[in-house]
Amino acid sequence: MKKPKWVIEKERQKRAGASDTVWLFGLHAVRDALLNPRREKLRLVLTRNAADRLGEVIVTGGVTPEIADPRCFPVPLDPGSVHQGAAIEVRPLSWGAIEDVVLAGGNPPRVVCLDRVTDPHNVGAILRSAEVFGASAVIAPARHSAPETGALAKAASGALERQPYIRVTNLSRAMEQLRSLGFILLGLDGTGEGTLDAALDDLGDRPLALVLGAEGPGLREKTRETCDRLVRIDSAGDFGSLNVSNAAAVALYAAGRALDC
Amino acid sequence: MKKPKWVIEKERQKRAGASDTVWLFGLHAVRDALLNPRREKLRLVLTRNAADRLGEVIVTGGVTPEIADPRCFPVPLDPGSVHQGAAIEVRPLSWGAIEDVVLAGGNPPRVVCLDRVTDPHNVGAILRSAEVFGASAVIAPARHSAPETGALAKAASGALERQPYIRVTNLSRAMEQLRSLGFILLGLDGTGEGTLDAALDDLGDRPLALVLGAEGPGLREKTRETCDRLVRIDSAGDFGSLNVSNAAAVALYAAGRALDC
Repeated sequence: MKKPKWVIEKERQKRAGASDTVWLFGLHAVRDALLNPRREKLRLVLTRNAADRLGEVIVTGGVTPEIADPRCFPVPLDPGSVHQGAAIEVRPLSWGAIEDVVLAGGNPPRVVCLDRVTDPHNVGAILRSAEVFGASAVIAPARHSAPETGALAKAASGALERQPYIRVTNLSRAMEQLRSLGFILLGLDGTGEGTLDAALDDLGDRPLALVLGAEGPGLREKTRETCDRLVRIDSAGDFGSLNVSNAAAVALYAAGRALDC
Repeated sequence: MKKPKWVIEKERQKRAGASDTVWLFGLHAVRDALLNPRREKLRLVLTRNAADRLGEVIVTGGVTPEIADPRCFPVPLDPGSVHQGAAIEVRPLSWGAIEDVVLAGGNPPRVVCLDRVTDPHNVGAILRSAEVFGASAVIAPARHSAPETGALAKAASGALERQPYIRVTNLSRAMEQLRSLGFILLGLDGTGEGTLDAALDDLGDRPLALVLGAEGPGLREKTRETCDRLVRIDSAGDFGSLNVSNAAAVALYAAGRALDC
């Protein structure tokens, strides 16, 4: 017998609810989370030593720490995670609606759209670059993107707490929404006809969305079609390609620089 | 009784000799190594399936493959390595003397010096950016740098075979050598007084070495002192910093762009 739709939906919600908290770990990531008033904190687990090192910050965080034995740290982390005796269970940050976030920062606003970039190191690095170069948001599909986990928080080195990372149900639809808000959508693609620099020169001070895909598959067909232009970063030779986070950093820097020229 | 010096030295050489070969793994990295005539290949281990997928490339490589059972792949790899049934034992590439390599590429030449960057993902990404932006070499100390391993090869996505990665005994001495060859040494440092852009504007068409340190510790004291200038990448806000490979990519891009202006 097939399950009725409402049962399936309820089960889906239950699963979603269960995974709706994440464990961030490492002294840096835990400190950043504690200092972030917008972060909903559920449990804080520290070794005595980590508690001493975090000191006053623990009080600021407003969640009573559970002191744990370093030899049996009672937190579900990936094997090999370097937790430094500090872990905190939190809810993902809620950044609000796209239209409120993307136009808030920068002059003109810049956003980064990531099409199925699943490597947390890359997404973490991109959040850092987005923050440094003043992008108002990084937008990614809810599925097939690096989730907001401890590994991502560590790679983001604090930027996860400060840089809006918005997960959407449908990336193309979010891109259409950006277009309706006045954004030009530039897709980075090795096969792009024009160069990024030329496209930026044409852009003036219009809001800009930089769209990048995962390494290997690149941008999906639908994502490519939704871009206004596909552009490539100029290369000195015939071989090689940039790591996706490196490409994002270069594009964000170039977009800021084009304004100064 | 203390061991005599010559015994200690012999043991050291033996250890060095033992680690003088590396296993590269994954279809991509193995294919790139096979196609590189400069790469000294010792052993090639493939599953039947991987051998079929590599096809003609195996003949080009000139090393007879050992066909292995995928269930007990007889190669010493790190646990969790995704080898895809393909591994090759090779010697590190020999790129020759610094003075021959650094002036060979680019007009003007650009090099990247890495001060104790140990993360293979970061070094791999930097090799890719160096190749894309036409840097003639990436120079790093022999010790406390990411070794030329499978993880680095994978992160470098082919660039390890093509982009000179030179390991030196003493980084400061190598930097002095670059200076004597006419290079300007710009150290990237968050505390730098000037900006990268301003320094590049002053540079004209002189050869350029970009010097970057590991995240956290940054440039060592001696390395900082050996730089001509310490510069920072302009940031939109007070928080955050770039991942080291992202900073290298931005600096290499900016250096190329400064010439066009």
